Amino acid sequence: MLKVPDHQVAGHRQARDGKPSPLIDDAGRFYKPLQDDDRGSKEVAFYSSFSSNTRVPDHVRRLFPVFHGTQLIEASDGSGLRPHLVLEDVVSSRSHPSVMDIKIGSRTWYPEASEDYIQRCFKKDRETSSLSLGFRISGLQIYGNEESRLWKPENKLVQNLSAADVKVVLKKFVSSNFPDDPNSDPDCSFAASVYGGSTGILAQLLELKAWFEDQTTYHLNSCSVLMVYEKEKMLKGERSDAEVKLIDFAHVTEGKGIIDHNFLGGLCSVIKFISEILTSPDECTTKVCLQDSDKNTNDSENCTTEGM
Amino acid sequence: MLKVPDHQVAGHRQARDGKPSPLIDDAGRFYKPLQDDDRGSKEVAFYSSFSSNTRVPDHVRRLFPVFHGTQLIEASDGSGLRPHLVLEDVVSSRSHPSVMDIKIGSRTWYPEASEDYIQRCFKKDRETSSLSLGFRISGLQIYGNEESRLWKPENKLVQNLSAADVKVVLKKFVSSNFPDDPNSDPDCSFAASVYGGSTGILAQLLELKAWFEDQTTYHLNSCSVLMVYEKEKMLKGERSDAEVKLIDFAHVTEGKGIIDHNFLGGLCSVIKFISEILTSPDECTTKVCLQDSDKNTNDSENCTTEGM
Repeated sequence: MLKVPDHQVAGHRQARDGKPSPLIDDAGRFYKPLQDDDRGSKEVAFYSSFSSNTRVPDHVRRLFPVFHGTQLIEASDGSGLRPHLVLEDVVSSRSHPSVMDIKIGSRTWYPEASEDYIQRCFKKDRETSSLSLGFRISGLQIYGNEESRLWKPENKLVQNLSAADVKVVLKKFVSSNFPDDPNSDPDCSFAASVYGGSTGILAQLLELKAWFEDQTTYHLNSCSVLMVYEKEKMLKGERSDAEVKLIDFAHVTEGKGIIDHNFLGGLCSVIKFISEILTSPDECTTKVCLQDSDKNTNDSENCTTEGM
Repeated sequence: MLKVPDHQVAGHRQARDGKPSPLIDDAGRFYKPLQDDDRGSKEVAFYSSFSSNTRVPDHVRRLFPVFHGTQLIEASDGSGLRPHLVLEDVVSSRSHPSVMDIKIGSRTWYPEASEDYIQRCFKKDRETSSLSLGFRISGLQIYGNEESRLWKPENKLVQNLSAADVKVVLKKFVSSNFPDDPNSDPDCSFAASVYGGSTGILAQLLELKAWFEDQTTYHLNSCSVLMVYEKEKMLKGERSDAEVKLIDFAHVTEGKGIIDHNFLGGLCSVIKFISEILTSPDECTTKVCLQDSDKNTNDSENCTTEGM
């Protein structure tokens, strides 16, 4: 039985403008309708190449969704049979996932694209945080303490954040208090276990970085890093299930012997933000918690950001 | 006594369009005329800030020219007194320096620039190798075996090289045979001693990279990495004097808590090219030396590229 998933956070993976939505089954597979024009075939070409590329080391391969080929299935909008990419379901198989979709790169266009596409991306990169930060948050959902309370700001609101605001959002992502409460500063309770540690998000991003410093096969234009974990497990004291997955390969081009310096630079910027949260717990009180001086003392105690 | 230096390789540091040229003295100082508009004052502001910034570690500081303040001196074109930056003379104090000026970054413009400047740079970055490689060679001079024979291609000819051509030029830079000889493939004789080793160019670039992964104070837009060494010393079996220096800070902007992901990405691309020359000596024969099959055997023996 296929159904429309609950937890899609980034814009173009939702059903809109009459386009069919992705589907999931109960066996952990995610069915992504092939995009029109050549984007769909480009994404299939990337997954086919990547999944059969024996030079990709296992610790890098696990940062990409598993590819199960393509399948002709009934589209979610009732428009009939349509080819779908069949992928590992990274998000929807979880019960209450907190998810952040970060589009990497200060530039989302690439020389091989059409002039029209280049100009549109050039404009959007300048209008969002892509140009300044080297990435933009494309989508976001964070659960609060109670499972049912979900903070899911509109994508437009998070695409053009300042450096200071991005840091706050990255702190909210790993805090126990409810992210949408203006009277409550992020306590960073889960920073050490979600971002830090040998299997945490930072460690996974550093493995990705090392690969991008070396690989010259793929340029992952306009691709996203998805960060996922379940706060519920943290609250129960369970081991962190934090995961990094790269998604959206409709604009991948050949590396032709050159590293993807655009992706690498943006990735290093994300890494720097997350590293700072882990290594500068003081900032939790000095910058973010300035509003309420009484609370600073407690918050600084809660800032369990001892680093990796 | 001030004089016009012999060894300026990049375009805008030469006298042209009626602009005065830089000057040198015999005490190892380089006098750079302050550029008109706000570029001159921006460069002074950068050198003042950087030279007094106590957070810059010594191993990074030595990759920048020493700053000796500004001085009002007679311009080289006889146009009268003009303020000059007084800097360490990196190149001209050497007798026969081989020099490569690499402008780092796939983007030479920045959000704070004027729309006119942005559009001009955007166009030039696309027309040169900056966009694809993450850098462009801005100027180049390589000495041959005999001191007097100098290969100094026009800057326009080296700004838009393909990945394969950049690799050839980087090999020519560290080869004993004359770089302009079409019948002679680069032998990479000096690769290990100039690029490799604990004090070689790659080691210096890696120190720079580590700093750029962390520092969020300066964005070095449109800045160059200069690589310099004297082939004569290599031929005499002396220790390599290979040096990396960053130059041209007329477009530096404040980092505002964000790493310079554009510079970092481009720098990583340069590092990858140089690493490959050090770690893949075979390629010297398979790709570059294909033209003359008889010579391949000899060349592969000469490829002393054992890595660091």
